[in-house]
Amino acid sequence: MSEHEAPETRREDEDFGLARDAVSAVAAALEAGDAPALAQLLEGMHPADIADLLEQLDPEDRRELLRMWGSELEGEVLSELDEGLREEVIAALSPEALGEAVRELETDDVVDLVEDLEEEQREEILAALPADDRAAVEQSLAYPEGTAGRLMQREFVSVPEHWTVGDAIDYLRAAEELPEDFYHVILVDPRMRPTGYVPLGRILANRRDVPLKDLRDESFRTIHVLQDVEDVAYVFNHYHLISAPVVDDDGRLTGVVTIDDAMAVLDEEAEEDILRLAGVGDESLSDRISEIAKARFVWLFVNLLTAILASLVIDYFSEAIEAAVALAVLMPIMASMGGNAGTQSMTVAVRALATRDLTMSNAWRVIQREVAVGALNGAAFGLIMAVVAGVWFGMPMLPVVVASAMVLTLVSAALGGILIPLALDRLGVDPALASGPFVTTVTDLVSFGAFLGLASWILL
Amino acid sequence: MSEHEAPETRREDEDFGLARDAVSAVAAALEAGDAPALAQLLEGMHPADIADLLEQLDPEDRRELLRMWGSELEGEVLSELDEGLREEVIAALSPEALGEAVRELETDDVVDLVEDLEEEQREEILAALPADDRAAVEQSLAYPEGTAGRLMQREFVSVPEHWTVGDAIDYLRAAEELPEDFYHVILVDPRMRPTGYVPLGRILANRRDVPLKDLRDESFRTIHVLQDVEDVAYVFNHYHLISAPVVDDDGRLTGVVTIDDAMAVLDEEAEEDILRLAGVGDESLSDRISEIAKARFVWLFVNLLTAILASLVIDYFSEAIEAAVALAVLMPIMASMGGNAGTQSMTVAVRALATRDLTMSNAWRVIQREVAVGALNGAAFGLIMAVVAGVWFGMPMLPVVVASAMVLTLVSAALGGILIPLALDRLGVDPALASGPFVTTVTDLVSFGAFLGLASWILL
Repeated sequence: MSEHEAPETRREDEDFGLARDAVSAVAAALEAGDAPALAQLLEGMHPADIADLLEQLDPEDRRELLRMWGSELEGEVLSELDEGLREEVIAALSPEALGEAVRELETDDVVDLVEDLEEEQREEILAALPADDRAAVEQSLAYPEGTAGRLMQREFVSVPEHWTVGDAIDYLRAAEELPEDFYHVILVDPRMRPTGYVPLGRILANRRDVPLKDLRDESFRTIHVLQDVEDVAYVFNHYHLISAPVVDDDGRLTGVVTIDDAMAVLDEEAEEDILRLAGVGDESLSDRISEIAKARFVWLFVNLLTAILASLVIDYFSEAIEAAVALAVLMPIMASMGGNAGTQSMTVAVRALATRDLTMSNAWRVIQREVAVGALNGAAFGLIMAVVAGVWFGMPMLPVVVASAMVLTLVSAALGGILIPLALDRLGVDPALASGPFVTTVTDLVSFGAFLGLASWILL
Repeated sequence: MSEHEAPETRREDEDFGLARDAVSAVAAALEAGDAPALAQLLEGMHPADIADLLEQLDPEDRRELLRMWGSELEGEVLSELDEGLREEVIAALSPEALGEAVRELETDDVVDLVEDLEEEQREEILAALPADDRAAVEQSLAYPEGTAGRLMQREFVSVPEHWTVGDAIDYLRAAEELPEDFYHVILVDPRMRPTGYVPLGRILANRRDVPLKDLRDESFRTIHVLQDVEDVAYVFNHYHLISAPVVDDDGRLTGVVTIDDAMAVLDEEAEEDILRLAGVGDESLSDRISEIAKARFVWLFVNLLTAILASLVIDYFSEAIEAAVALAVLMPIMASMGGNAGTQSMTVAVRALATRDLTMSNAWRVIQREVAVGALNGAAFGLIMAVVAGVWFGMPMLPVVVASAMVLTLVSAALGGILIPLALDRLGVDPALASGPFVTTVTDLVSFGAFLGLASWILL
């Protein structure tokens, strides 16, 4: 941020997101039981900020806020809430407050809200909706999770493909209800199949007698209702789309995906990759301690097994260590370098697979590149460590052992780091989730095995 | 993806992105020197896909393609290209082809294209632009990198705030040039300060005599021209914006940021976090081997220093290892568990800081939570490892040592994993970049130190 002094219209920092002192101010009002002060603080606050506030309050304050102010809670706050907290907040609301809140929401937001809820809460929310909204939500829920059918909104604007600008304007002016956000008028043939779309700006910029057909935008692409949301996000990002019609098996228009939904998916995917690479599930700050510990336990347990495997290798060479304790001192360096180099290669590979930069067309070149990088850095660190080991322990052949083991370790770390994600991806397993333990196993076994094996052979 | 059989309008898989066999088909045409076949393959291909194709071809084929087809290359392909390849491709184009390509681009795309180029290439591109475009690009380049001024487009639609729907439509119809994409008409006061905006859909849906003021959207927010792009992306994502006016120090309208630019920033930030957490710089698959090796070397070297530090701890306890080689066998397990648990906590903390879910309001609660999770898993793995060590080595007090060291290791890994990113963030250092080595140092020192120290004390 700049040092510039800010005149009237320059937005203050706290305007971007929840104000810094809002949490403490709300907590103070709650502790004082001061309902008017609380209402004044929350009034006019954006639903996304109220959701953040609920996430940051401690559990007791949160319950108190919902007790004092729950009847005013907007439906959008529920949409914005962290999934881990939704159940708690929904359970704390009175049936009337909950009903009022969800009736304000667009159907795609209701779908997003209820899809991860327990059956009972889901039923409670669906029951609060008017019959036609409920039907629309249930129809969306009938599509498998993670498909465009779940992501799309059912509100859209479509007109016959032979219409003119004037026809479209008259139709829109006469329409009783229009979608909250729409960026294109979709042209459809008599069988309701989309054949193109016209950006609203072009309709506004042209005379009434211009045929809509002449204003179609070339970015037009349809998405199948069963398309994976990850693919949908990729298409939006790759082709810079702003909205895309969703069609069913017969090519008929059934909904529209807009860029904000695609952006949310993209954001979630990246988040998921980051957390999975670190061996953390889809955890969030509002999850319970026992849940978090359990989820992380699984990953640590897998890691324990690979570590024990590595220890078996060390045990196999225990005579060498008894003969030269320098080996015990140096071997964690080898393992650490192998682990880190493997993680580097693996992370690049996992991301490149996710962004589709790594494909079968260039895999072979990328593998060669990784091996070359591993060999280069293996040689460099082999040299450095040879000097360190020589100076430190003064054993004549130790530098040779260290240097050779380092090259072997970094080359196999590079190979493991690229081949394992590629193989997992081919097998249809998420490489972000499963690569880590395999790569660690490879780097541990090679680093300890090569170092201690060479040492037994050359030194003893 | 679904098993459904696809009728006419169902898009084929390869329609999402570059077709699977396109790379080999293009390579074949290049090797045969078949210019018509090449032109046919590339014609009608989306610029984003041609960029992908250039990235996936091997360097020789890429040069050949640019030689045979470079004069047809659209400017958008240059925008879509990986930064690592841009210089190479630009250098391979003839001055005429390059000039033609960049003249097609919108000014914000030219800014994005030239900002990372060498002075010489930048000058060549700027010289190819018409005078007014060149001035606009230079004005944007005058803003610091990473600010809204660099991200915004200078094309926008603004009208006096007292206008009606009819006024706006007449103005738009008469306008000679409109921005490629715009989603709002921005209302400005007589001093060109934005006071609100109206979504195009509302203009289309209302009668000519309705004042635009009555149709303003409540999502309206302005962004300062010097605002950090990360903040801009956050605001778009948090408040679900589709576009936002950019203002200067006097509050005057100077440009517009649209959601696709914000989406690109968000994507880059997440990418950066993932790579930085793994100790990889901003590398991409098209970087040269020597560059990649050098960038990764730096991180591995930092890691080597922390590993040597850990080895000094081991060396300090070498007598204990000589007395009981079981210690050498088990100690990598302790280090590995500590390192992984630390990475888990650290990754969650780094992400929560990036998404602003972790703030000073809830830091204390999150720290307590991490410690509790560390203690729980420390106890669980302490127990497991006590049994393993007991069965494996049959040394009477070894299980006690292993269990105590495991609890200490996992609790300090949790503490290090949360406190280090928090501290770095406070100091204004990117926690994704710098947390890793510090956390590793903590977990290595504690795991080796606690395990070998307790062993010397209790066992010997």
